[in-house]
Amino acid sequence: MTRIANDAMPPLQINADRLWARHMDIARIGAIAGNGSCRLAMTAEDAEARALLASWCRDAGLELRVDRAGNMVAVRPGSDPARGIVASGSHLDTQPHGGRFDGVSGVLAALEAVETLNDAGIATAAPLAVVNWTNEEGVRYAPGLLGSAWYAGLLTDEALSDTRAADGMLFDDEARLRGWLGDSSEKIPLAAFLELHIEQGPVLEREEKQVGVVTSVQGLTWLDVRVSGTDAHAGTTPLDHRQDALLAAARMLAALNEAGLECGPAARVSVGRLTTATDGPSTVVGEAAFVIDIRHPDTGTLAGLTAKCTAICETLAVQSGCTATVTQRISVSPTQFDASCVRALEDGAARRGYAYRKIASGALHDAANVAKVVPTAMVFVPCRDGISHNVNEYASPEDLAAGTNVLLDALLDLAR
Amino acid sequence: MTRIANDAMPPLQINADRLWARHMDIARIGAIAGNGSCRLAMTAEDAEARALLASWCRDAGLELRVDRAGNMVAVRPGSDPARGIVASGSHLDTQPHGGRFDGVSGVLAALEAVETLNDAGIATAAPLAVVNWTNEEGVRYAPGLLGSAWYAGLLTDEALSDTRAADGMLFDDEARLRGWLGDSSEKIPLAAFLELHIEQGPVLEREEKQVGVVTSVQGLTWLDVRVSGTDAHAGTTPLDHRQDALLAAARMLAALNEAGLECGPAARVSVGRLTTATDGPSTVVGEAAFVIDIRHPDTGTLAGLTAKCTAICETLAVQSGCTATVTQRISVSPTQFDASCVRALEDGAARRGYAYRKIASGALHDAANVAKVVPTAMVFVPCRDGISHNVNEYASPEDLAAGTNVLLDALLDLAR
Repeated sequence: MTRIANDAMPPLQINADRLWARHMDIARIGAIAGNGSCRLAMTAEDAEARALLASWCRDAGLELRVDRAGNMVAVRPGSDPARGIVASGSHLDTQPHGGRFDGVSGVLAALEAVETLNDAGIATAAPLAVVNWTNEEGVRYAPGLLGSAWYAGLLTDEALSDTRAADGMLFDDEARLRGWLGDSSEKIPLAAFLELHIEQGPVLEREEKQVGVVTSVQGLTWLDVRVSGTDAHAGTTPLDHRQDALLAAARMLAALNEAGLECGPAARVSVGRLTTATDGPSTVVGEAAFVIDIRHPDTGTLAGLTAKCTAICETLAVQSGCTATVTQRISVSPTQFDASCVRALEDGAARRGYAYRKIASGALHDAANVAKVVPTAMVFVPCRDGISHNVNEYASPEDLAAGTNVLLDALLDLAR
Repeated sequence: MTRIANDAMPPLQINADRLWARHMDIARIGAIAGNGSCRLAMTAEDAEARALLASWCRDAGLELRVDRAGNMVAVRPGSDPARGIVASGSHLDTQPHGGRFDGVSGVLAALEAVETLNDAGIATAAPLAVVNWTNEEGVRYAPGLLGSAWYAGLLTDEALSDTRAADGMLFDDEARLRGWLGDSSEKIPLAAFLELHIEQGPVLEREEKQVGVVTSVQGLTWLDVRVSGTDAHAGTTPLDHRQDALLAAARMLAALNEAGLECGPAARVSVGRLTTATDGPSTVVGEAAFVIDIRHPDTGTLAGLTAKCTAICETLAVQSGCTATVTQRISVSPTQFDASCVRALEDGAARRGYAYRKIASGALHDAANVAKVVPTAMVFVPCRDGISHNVNEYASPEDLAAGTNVLLDALLDLAR
C-alpha cells in the first residue's frame, strides 16, 4: 500500500475474471439442478460458503470480525486511525431454489474492490470492510434481513436468541454449531455502507442501462380486503339479483391496477393472493378475500395510494351489492438513501461513462435496515428478464464488472 | 270414488294443514340443527322416510311398486283400463345440510293431491301415481338424479350396479340392505309426469308470484379457462411490464358478467371456482384458472353465449399480455317441457287466480330426465330469499298449498 488514490489517476479496473470465478466457486456450494444454489442461513452449506469467504478475506489481508448475529465484517485497515469503517457487502444465503447472484454478487463485489486496491497498492484513509449479513432471505429463520435488523437495532438481543426454525432449532444453537456465532453483542461501528445487488426487476435491462444508482427503497403497505356477499345457486339466481363477492373482487382488481398505473411508473399495486370461502363451479361466491401489496418510494404518495385503494374496494363493494372491510396489515416506510453515498456512486458511473439511471428499489434489502443507523446507498446490476429467486437468475460478467467498478470508485471516494 | 270431476264443479282445495304436518313428520327423520334434515340416499334415514311415505300411501289405498333403482311408484287406479299412469312426485333424499322442502314438497304434494281426491270421492279415468325418485342429490352415490336417469335410460342397469359410494359400498348392496331394491328392471310406464319443487331461486318471491309454471330447464355449459402469464416480483416489476394472470382473469370475470347481463334475464354466467398456481401477496401471479358456468333455456342462445364467453377470455388474455386456453368440460342441452303438461298447470294457476309466471328452471331436476321419455312439466313454489341446500330453506304453508292446488288441477286435467 504505497499510494493514495487521487482524481488525476486513470480509473482502476476491477478483475472481472476473478469476480466471475468466485461467483462460480460459491455457486458450487449447495448447487442444485439448473444453475441454482440452495444455502439456507446457518445450514452446513451456508457455513461452507462463509468459510470460503473467510479464507479469501484472510488471503487478502483482512481482519475478520463476527458479531452476535453471525454477521461477518472483514476489515482492511485505513491510514487514518480517526476514521470509521467504510463497508460494503450483502449476503451469501439463498432462497431454496435460488440463483448464483442474489446477495452473493454484493459480497464478492466488495471483496473484489478491496483486492483491486491491494493489487494496485492503494491505501485509503478510512478502513474498508467486506460484510456478509446473516439470513437475508429468512427462509429457515424468520424474519428475513435478520442480521441487518439486529445490527440496526430493529431486533433485540432477546428476540434474536428466541429465533427458531420451524423444526424447533434455535438460531443461536445452530449458529454456534456451525461456528458462526460471535461473542460480541457490540455492533461493529460503520461510517458508511454500500451494497451492490442484482436489480431483481426488468427496468435496467429494458432501458439498456448497465448501472442503477439506488436512491431509495420503496415503502410497502399490505391491505387485507374481505368482501362479503351471499352464496347463491349459479343456475337459479338471476344476474341482477346477486351479491357475488368474487365478481366484486374481480372489479376491484381491475380498478386497483388502473389506480396504480395512474400513480406513475414508480407505483406498484399487486394482488398475488385471492381466496374464496366456497369453491364450486355452480355456487355464486359469498365470501372472498385478497391482499393488496402497494409500494412507492415516497411516503406521502404511498399513503395517498393506500387511501385510494381502500376507497376503490369500499365503493365497488357497494356497487356490487356486497360489503368490504379493508385492514392494514403491514406498513414499512420508504427508505431514502444518504445523499453523499448516492452521489459517490453516481459520480463513479458518470466518470466511467456507463449508461446508468437512478432507481428506487422495489425489493427490501439489508441496506434498507443499515440505512437507519449508517449513511448508506446501493448500486444495482441488471439481471436477465428481471428474474430472481429462481435458478434461471443471471447477471453477465460485464455488468457485474461495471457495477463493481462503480462500487470501487464510490468506496475510494468515501474512504479517501 | 263416486264422482268424476268436471269444469262445472267449484275447485277442490287441498288440505294445507295435512300437507304441512307431513312436511314436519318427514323433517324429523334425520333432523339436524337449525331446521335442517340430512337423509342421504339409501341410508337408514332415507329408508325410514321411505317407510313413512309407504305407510301413508298404503293408508290412502295406493299400490306401491319399487323398481330396480329403488324408485317408488304408488298407484291409484283409474276408471279406464286403457289409460297410462299420470304421475307426480320428486325425491325424499336431501343434501348433508339440507332443508325441509327441496324434493320432499314434491312427493308430499303428489300424495296430498291424491288424498284430496280420495276425500272428495273423485275418480279419474287414468291411474294416478305418487313417485319418489332415488338419490336426486347424488351426495353419497354419484351421479345425482340417479333414479330418474336410470328410468330415462341415461344410466344402464350395468352402470347402476357399478355405482359405489366413496367408502366402497355398492348402491345395489345398500339398497338391498335397506329393503328398497326392487326386483324389476322394467320401467313402470308413465303417460305424464308433473313435479312440484321449491324454486331454489329468488325470482317468484321478488316478483310476488305465488306459482311458477316451469316451461323448461336451462341448458348448461362449463368452460375451463387457464390463463398463463409470468410470475414476477410485486415490488420490482413495473405495472406496464407484467403478464399478470390473476389481473387478466379479473378483467375476464367482469366482462363475462357484462356478457351475461346483455344476453337477457334468462341468461346465467357465473364463476364460482378460481385458483392460482402461486399464492403469495408479493408475487405477481403467472398462472390462474377458473370455471365458467353458463346457462340458458334456449339451445342456440346458450351456444352463442358460450362462444362469446370464449372470445372474451381469449381477447382479454392478449390485451393483458397473457394467453388463455378455453376448454368445454360439460354441456347439457336445455329441456323444453311438454306443451300439454305446461298448459294444464297454467290453466290451474289462472283458474284459481293465483299470481303466477312462466319460468325456466336454473337447477336440474328429476323432471328434466323424465321429460326425455314421458310428457313432463314442473310447478315451482317460492322459497324465502331463494335459499336452498341450506337448513334455512323455507317455503310457506300458503305457498305450498297454492302450488299443490295447481298440481291437483293439472293432474285432474291430464287424467280426466
